[in-house]
Amino acid sequence: MIIESEPMGSTTYDLNRVRIVGIAAELFARNSYHGTGVAELSKAVGLGRGALYHYIGSKENLLYEISKTQVDQMNAQAERLLAAGLPTETLLRELAKGLLHNIAEHQFEWAVFFREYTALTGENRDRVVAARERYESYWRQALDRGAAEGVLAPAPRLLVKGILGMLNYTYLWFEPDGEVSPDELADAYLDALLDGIRQR
Amino acid sequence: MIIESEPMGSTTYDLNRVRIVGIAAELFARNSYHGTGVAELSKAVGLGRGALYHYIGSKENLLYEISKTQVDQMNAQAERLLAAGLPTETLLRELAKGLLHNIAEHQFEWAVFFREYTALTGENRDRVVAARERYESYWRQALDRGAAEGVLAPAPRLLVKGILGMLNYTYLWFEPDGEVSPDELADAYLDALLDGIRQR
Repeated sequence: MIIESEPMGSTTYDLNRVRIVGIAAELFARNSYHGTGVAELSKAVGLGRGALYHYIGSKENLLYEISKTQVDQMNAQAERLLAAGLPTETLLRELAKGLLHNIAEHQFEWAVFFREYTALTGENRDRVVAARERYESYWRQALDRGAAEGVLAPAPRLLVKGILGMLNYTYLWFEPDGEVSPDELADAYLDALLDGIRQR
Repeated sequence: MIIESEPMGSTTYDLNRVRIVGIAAELFARNSYHGTGVAELSKAVGLGRGALYHYIGSKENLLYEISKTQVDQMNAQAERLLAAGLPTETLLRELAKGLLHNIAEHQFEWAVFFREYTALTGENRDRVVAARERYESYWRQALDRGAAEGVLAPAPRLLVKGILGMLNYTYLWFEPDGEVSPDELADAYLDALLDGIRQR
């Protein structure tokens, strides 16, 4: 196989792969996954069909890479934050900031993920769904830890999905060059969530 | 034109249209807008291509109907609630319940709307975006009214998008036959938003 002659660890191979995944994310975000043909992809990345397949295997594999890469990064980040022994409030704010930063920096990837992950099949889909559930479980751990320490009220089971909705929805509207930074937005949302919007 | 021989107000025409839009929403949600052909649509609704076009005009028009109908209903509902002179807290809870009910009852339509509205072009897209912005403005009015009355703290400008994210995200995961009803979920989210999740 060609792939074995140029192993996964090689820098050129990896850089090319990252570049292809980035270009594909933008194309899929603009024209949809089903609306983007392999010919169009080949042209955009400047590689023949054979070379393109050498890097990505299949169009679905590309969708998988786009979807999985960011979720994996979020999981790694959440694991680090949960292990860091931060106070609950700091932990929640850091989780939110990490996610909003990632979404702001990878809006094409997140748009593709949210719009197109249902186009994934079989194991690809199972792995992405499992990775998403793991990320949600980290947030639940943070909320549960806060409740166990008496810092937070016991959270209703579905609140975590509401918090993630609040944060994830930014893929649709956040302007990275706008007047509010991901950090400021995360803090504003956490202020509202922690202390409520009722006047006291 | 054929359409003139059977005016928009006729019951059979309207019922057929509603049925076609419903079937198309399910197909688009399952297989994506670009992944659903007109032949497949024809077959699913049991009409020839000519009859199908008589009802919908074009595939994009169908996407427009799917996207616009629910947003219009939400706007009409928000206008009624804002005009009803409700206390701020009741107003916010009713807005949230209305939206969560609609999403729970029209999950295919909302999935199509969120995933595919970027496939709309020209005036169709402008009208859907304008209708979405109007809905957001109603929420902002409710928050501003609460702040003016001293019931709510002045809300950061972008909070409304966070609240809508919390609610809209349910299109992805809410189980209409699950153990939590749309009303209960709306109240749980509003409890968290109004009073915060910090232990007091």
